[in-house]
Amino acid sequence: MKFALIGAGVMGKAHAIALRSVATVFPDVPAPVREILADVDGSRAEQHAKAWGFRHATDDWLSACLAPEVDVVGICTPNHLHKEMVLAAIGAGKHVYCEKPLGLDGAEAASMYLAARDAGAKTAVGFNYTCNPMIRLARSIVEAGELGDPVSFSGSFEEDYLGDPQAPFGWRCARSTAGSGALNDLGSHLIHLAHFLVGRLASVYGNLTTVYRQRPDPNGGAWREVENEDMAQVLVQFESGMPGTFEISRVATGRKSGLAFRLTGSRGSLTFDQVRMNELRVYRAADHSGQAGYQTILAGPEHADYENFCPAPGHGLGINDLKVIELRNVLAGIAHDRAIEADFEEGWRVQAVIDAIEESDRNRCWTSPATTPLLAVPATGDGQGTAVHSGGQ
Amino acid sequence: MKFALIGAGVMGKAHAIALRSVATVFPDVPAPVREILADVDGSRAEQHAKAWGFRHATDDWLSACLAPEVDVVGICTPNHLHKEMVLAAIGAGKHVYCEKPLGLDGAEAASMYLAARDAGAKTAVGFNYTCNPMIRLARSIVEAGELGDPVSFSGSFEEDYLGDPQAPFGWRCARSTAGSGALNDLGSHLIHLAHFLVGRLASVYGNLTTVYRQRPDPNGGAWREVENEDMAQVLVQFESGMPGTFEISRVATGRKSGLAFRLTGSRGSLTFDQVRMNELRVYRAADHSGQAGYQTILAGPEHADYENFCPAPGHGLGINDLKVIELRNVLAGIAHDRAIEADFEEGWRVQAVIDAIEESDRNRCWTSPATTPLLAVPATGDGQGTAVHSGGQ
Amino acid sequence: MKFALIGAGVMGKAHAIALRSVATVFPDVPAPVREILADVDGSRAEQHAKAWGFRHATDDWLSACLAPEVDVVGICTPNHLHKEMVLAAIGAGKHVYCEKPLGLDGAEAASMYLAARDAGAKTAVGFNYTCNPMIRLARSIVEAGELGDPVSFSGSFEEDYLGDPQAPFGWRCARSTAGSGALNDLGSHLIHLAHFLVGRLASVYGNLTTVYRQRPDPNGGAWREVENEDMAQVLVQFESGMPGTFEISRVATGRKSGLAFRLTGSRGSLTFDQVRMNELRVYRAADHSGQAGYQTILAGPEHADYENFCPAPGHGLGINDLKVIELRNVLAGIAHDRAIEADFEEGWRVQAVIDAIEESDRNRCWTSPATTPLLAVPATGDGQGTAVHSGGQ
Amino acid sequence: MKFALIGAGVMGKAHAIALRSVATVFPDVPAPVREILADVDGSRAEQHAKAWGFRHATDDWLSACLAPEVDVVGICTPNHLHKEMVLAAIGAGKHVYCEKPLGLDGAEAASMYLAARDAGAKTAVGFNYTCNPMIRLARSIVEAGELGDPVSFSGSFEEDYLGDPQAPFGWRCARSTAGSGALNDLGSHLIHLAHFLVGRLASVYGNLTTVYRQRPDPNGGAWREVENEDMAQVLVQFESGMPGTFEISRVATGRKSGLAFRLTGSRGSLTFDQVRMNELRVYRAADHSGQAGYQTILAGPEHADYENFCPAPGHGLGINDLKVIELRNVLAGIAHDRAIEADFEEGWRVQAVIDAIEESDRNRCWTSPATTPLLAVPATGDGQGTAVHSGGQ
Repeated sequence: MKFALIGAGVMGKAHAIALRSVATVFPDVPAPVREILADVDGSRAEQHAKAWGFRHATDDWLSACLAPEVDVVGICTPNHLHKEMVLAAIGAGKHVYCEKPLGLDGAEAASMYLAARDAGAKTAVGFNYTCNPMIRLARSIVEAGELGDPVSFSGSFEEDYLGDPQAPFGWRCARSTAGSGALNDLGSHLIHLAHFLVGRLASVYGNLTTVYRQRPDPNGGAWREVENEDMAQVLVQFESGMPGTFEISRVATGRKSGLAFRLTGSRGSLTFDQVRMNELRVYRAADHSGQAGYQTILAGPEHADYENFCPAPGHGLGINDLKVIELRNVLAGIAHDRAIEADFEEGWRVQAVIDAIEESDRNRCWTSPATTPLLAVPATGDGQGTAVHSGGQ
Repeated sequence: MKFALIGAGVMGKAHAIALRSVATVFPDVPAPVREILADVDGSRAEQHAKAWGFRHATDDWLSACLAPEVDVVGICTPNHLHKEMVLAAIGAGKHVYCEKPLGLDGAEAASMYLAARDAGAKTAVGFNYTCNPMIRLARSIVEAGELGDPVSFSGSFEEDYLGDPQAPFGWRCARSTAGSGALNDLGSHLIHLAHFLVGRLASVYGNLTTVYRQRPDPNGGAWREVENEDMAQVLVQFESGMPGTFEISRVATGRKSGLAFRLTGSRGSLTFDQVRMNELRVYRAADHSGQAGYQTILAGPEHADYENFCPAPGHGLGINDLKVIELRNVLAGIAHDRAIEADFEEGWRVQAVIDAIEESDRNRCWTSPATTPLLAVPATGDGQGTAVHSGGQ
Repeated sequence: MKFALIGAGVMGKAHAIALRSVATVFPDVPAPVREILADVDGSRAEQHAKAWGFRHATDDWLSACLAPEVDVVGICTPNHLHKEMVLAAIGAGKHVYCEKPLGLDGAEAASMYLAARDAGAKTAVGFNYTCNPMIRLARSIVEAGELGDPVSFSGSFEEDYLGDPQAPFGWRCARSTAGSGALNDLGSHLIHLAHFLVGRLASVYGNLTTVYRQRPDPNGGAWREVENEDMAQVLVQFESGMPGTFEISRVATGRKSGLAFRLTGSRGSLTFDQVRMNELRVYRAADHSGQAGYQTILAGPEHADYENFCPAPGHGLGINDLKVIELRNVLAGIAHDRAIEADFEEGWRVQAVIDAIEESDRNRCWTSPATTPLLAVPATGDGQGTAVHSGGQ
Repeated sequence: MKFALIGAGVMGKAHAIALRSVATVFPDVPAPVREILADVDGSRAEQHAKAWGFRHATDDWLSACLAPEVDVVGICTPNHLHKEMVLAAIGAGKHVYCEKPLGLDGAEAASMYLAARDAGAKTAVGFNYTCNPMIRLARSIVEAGELGDPVSFSGSFEEDYLGDPQAPFGWRCARSTAGSGALNDLGSHLIHLAHFLVGRLASVYGNLTTVYRQRPDPNGGAWREVENEDMAQVLVQFESGMPGTFEISRVATGRKSGLAFRLTGSRGSLTFDQVRMNELRVYRAADHSGQAGYQTILAGPEHADYENFCPAPGHGLGINDLKVIELRNVLAGIAHDRAIEADFEEGWRVQAVIDAIEESDRNRCWTSPATTPLLAVPATGDGQGTAVHSGGQ
């Protein structure tokens, strides 16, 4: 299976590491061939192709998509470039493995989803956090009914990469290149995680805030207006009737990789924090009499996929290992023509939720995510929440 | 200073322990005299008066309020009894120290606040959690500007005392005896804590849920309708413009004493969890280069009031010690005729927020708490949120 | 039951708080009467007697011991004063409740134990940490066989109250007033805890170190030689054959109240740290398949004595609450003429272990603690370990 | 640089993953070529060579060592096979990268060290835990003097892979195949870590225990005698004069990957636990007034090597990533002809300490590790500690 990879930046490197390791870690999947590395910066493409073991380098992403020998196109470029590349790859009959968020918004994502569906392409979106054996364990506990009936879900994804008010304006701050802000970058992971664990959302009500409305222009002395939200605080209702909250921030001073949740049922509950990604905490109300309490389960070979990395418990996987599992899912899905869990349909559904959150903030009412891709329409309004706060009065 | 204490149940005992210890712990305040213990169950009053060292016992709360030798009346009865007792005590010229929530709702609380204000009575509400030296430290860090500008506040108070679907219907489940549910019982603490740390609320938007709509009647085979909310999930805006969330639940399986918050500023953040009440976690973005990270500060003699309990750091205070500090605040406030922090005005303001949360859930719009006690009006509507969920559609 | 309390310092205050609270917390024990407070500083005795509610104050400890109306003498003075006071109180027919360590060494402790035994006095030593409901739970888990066969015990008690090299010389640094250093002050608690959980010690091998051999004399410019150990690291064997380690330090920079242990058996293990004194962590190898992991049990009303303080789980006891439980044990032991767990025999046995540790360090060989009080002989040698280190070569 | 890898088991796979990833993660080192995979099971060698991307497979390890095109030989076989393979590889002029422990004992390790030194071969031992950016940070804090003068080191490496009394006898239980037990397998890592952080050991005193003296023979119904220790508890003195303890166990029920330490100095301290390998806890006595406390530093791009895996803090490395860093060290050492930190000299010094621990347990006296390889002599005695316990009496 031959891969073209577009984008030789940070996520491109994560994909490249996975492409190299996957066949050793998972001997039962076909080894991917690193065929072409494309980057808008041709010399970077050359240099990284050599280091990362790609056969060819190019500064022409379209040629990489069209190359007849390529089976799968991986896309690791900024959000606004996904759509054109994805559609080209699908048009050329390729399978596509695209980083998140799938598009700038639900409409873009829907167009990619529909194109892939019509073409019969296998697709995947880079929602690697749900590849974690501990998250798989969480879902198996939920599915086995061990938590009882659903009561509530509190999820957050908080980082501080823009926590410094002086952090420069970057492509993530502009509507035209990023779409929404913290929602597209971090919220997309949290929404997918919620889908994965407890199902789809019926309705959302968001409060979006751009805490730092201007940031220094890295290209000069001026200040630029930030065009999307730094934070989103959201009330949610799942289709099951269970209520919950989402808290998403890129300005949460002190939080790094802060994807966390508490999932409560009538008979037990789970808590998880990505910074301790090898631990899942489980509470069972019916445990040993007088001795109930959260139990900290450490990742080990009894959990999905762990043993492929290490036979001994507690040794711990890292973030890049999740990318290896994700790639395995892509390879196995293509090889065996079976569904890939986080596919373009899921990529679109996640962004339909983000659209609904933005709309609920604009219109100040509970809003339901689109349930068919045809209904997805481009977002309107200024799209950046209200300055400082959009609440009340 | 002579005390009458009304209510010889669980909270009455906590007050009694504090009344006995306070003068030893804090030698600079006048020792309170345990004059009268009143309880509707006269034999319980007798028995506990003896064990707890009260001079007299009675089953007539009014006589306790009116007794000329009594200076302060402490009230530890269910919510719906507060108003009549408080007004009687104030009418008799007493100072009043009442358990939370002050009343069934903001209107009741306002009437007590106004009566006390007009009478010049000293008042206090039992919001003991803010008496914790670690919470005092948190506020001093905020006030010193060490966190920079406010960014967000995420607070929760989650318990599971009604987490069992089979837990019987009790007085906390009825409007007439409890007012709101989780909001009055747990939310009141969280709202006061938020006030204490970051100021007043401008606007709220709540989603209330009664997860278990019927509970077994402990007096017979029938099921009774639960009349108030099990959970409240709330978007909030502070007057400073800072947004936040509150999550309040009495059905959060696995959580015990789960009063917790994350407070984020532009230069640092704080986290706290009551189950580790002797720890405060602080993040400072400007810390040692390459070595930022949350620091866990253990309670010690350098923090407010701690040294009165123990001269050595890390030894730890317990929940009852917070009641001793609270009582010291009451005694000192009366003795030196100075303001008590958590007084009836604060008790009313807290319930004005709860009223606003309930109203926002009913009307599905952001709602501002009343800012003058005159504006407080009784809540209308069924007051129990929508069954299962009140979101969307 | 009338109490005389000798020593109005820090520990005296802890006793005074407990004397005041105990009858409210535990209504089933007789309320102690605070009869006499004695302190070498007569004006301090007067002042504190008033604040703490004692009927009389004196600067003459002997008169307090001899007062006919006194039933129990509590002793909260520095170590070297215990023996004379204890023997006087026993001679006067009193019961005695003495702070730890019982004496300067095993010989002193043995003389007190034997005197009390011969007189039929009830005795107690202030080993409050084992009064913790979580430690009681730990023992019940051990006794129920839930951990299987004993494998190892690793215990530590580490503080940093002398961690600053410039901390002044105090009475704890001198043989004549303290006996051993970290061992008597902290090690005594750890040894008692080990006895309590897993039984007596067959043999010990210690490595004692005085890290800071000189400290500033608080009374003048000179430096004084520290006469006892700052740290003890000890290999141990229990009578059951189980091996273990003790680590004891008063110079462990950063550690506060650092009494901790890991107890391992063939089927499970326990861990505990006093700074989170309301938590016990339990591992059961046979737990839910694929889901073993340490469970954090929070203190709650289902655990011994907790409910007397608070009916709700997770609210947390503090260090002073342990003193209240300890005093209850004393009162109940006397009232019902039954054994008090941490009595003078135990106080002597603990110091026999400390003697053996010191001897093992001097003689560089495994040493067994004395098993009869007659065999206890005064320690010889310089008693301060070897400077800097006593290991090897 | 061409690699032959001997041993296609668990550690062989970890090496294979690293061989594949290293050039992508660290573009500045030459990409290793996977030339030959050797395994005693020829078909396993064939199968894994294909999956892991090796050019050739063989069941003849010697031919792999002798192959002229091979530059480096990696050795991932059981302990007793290391010596012959290492000496053959060195004899053939190869560099050698051998798993730990280097040999069965110090004498074997010395012979390998001396052979490599004489041949000018670059060597490395698989002590991957010190490749962790957090451990590098720990050392840089120590070296910068931020902790002040050394006070104590408490280290442990505890696992429970033989915690089940019914776990079958394996090669790790026999002297002839494993040498010592928990010491060689786990203790070797801990000793190297101690060397890395705080320098060499002057003297040790160990207490070794074989908890389960017989285990079921996997090849039949009989029981086999376990020939080496399950646990070692050790008092240590470093050359700096600092005392400490080591606790090493393979029967520590509940502990997984339990490599942990507390390092205390006069001005600060560090704690670390491998199960949270992306966290280092630091205490500085001089921190913010009234606000000292352990700070939890999360791994991030400001720490050594982290950025090569991920540009964002808190995302976390896993155990296999440490192997990639270790391999980078090997490649860079060879390419630039510079020292590799964990080389055969270190491998020998670690086992000299293990020899000394075993000897101290046999002779019951403090023992110094050999300081020259010539002095290393084979261990004598039964080498398995005393049954049940070897202490006292």
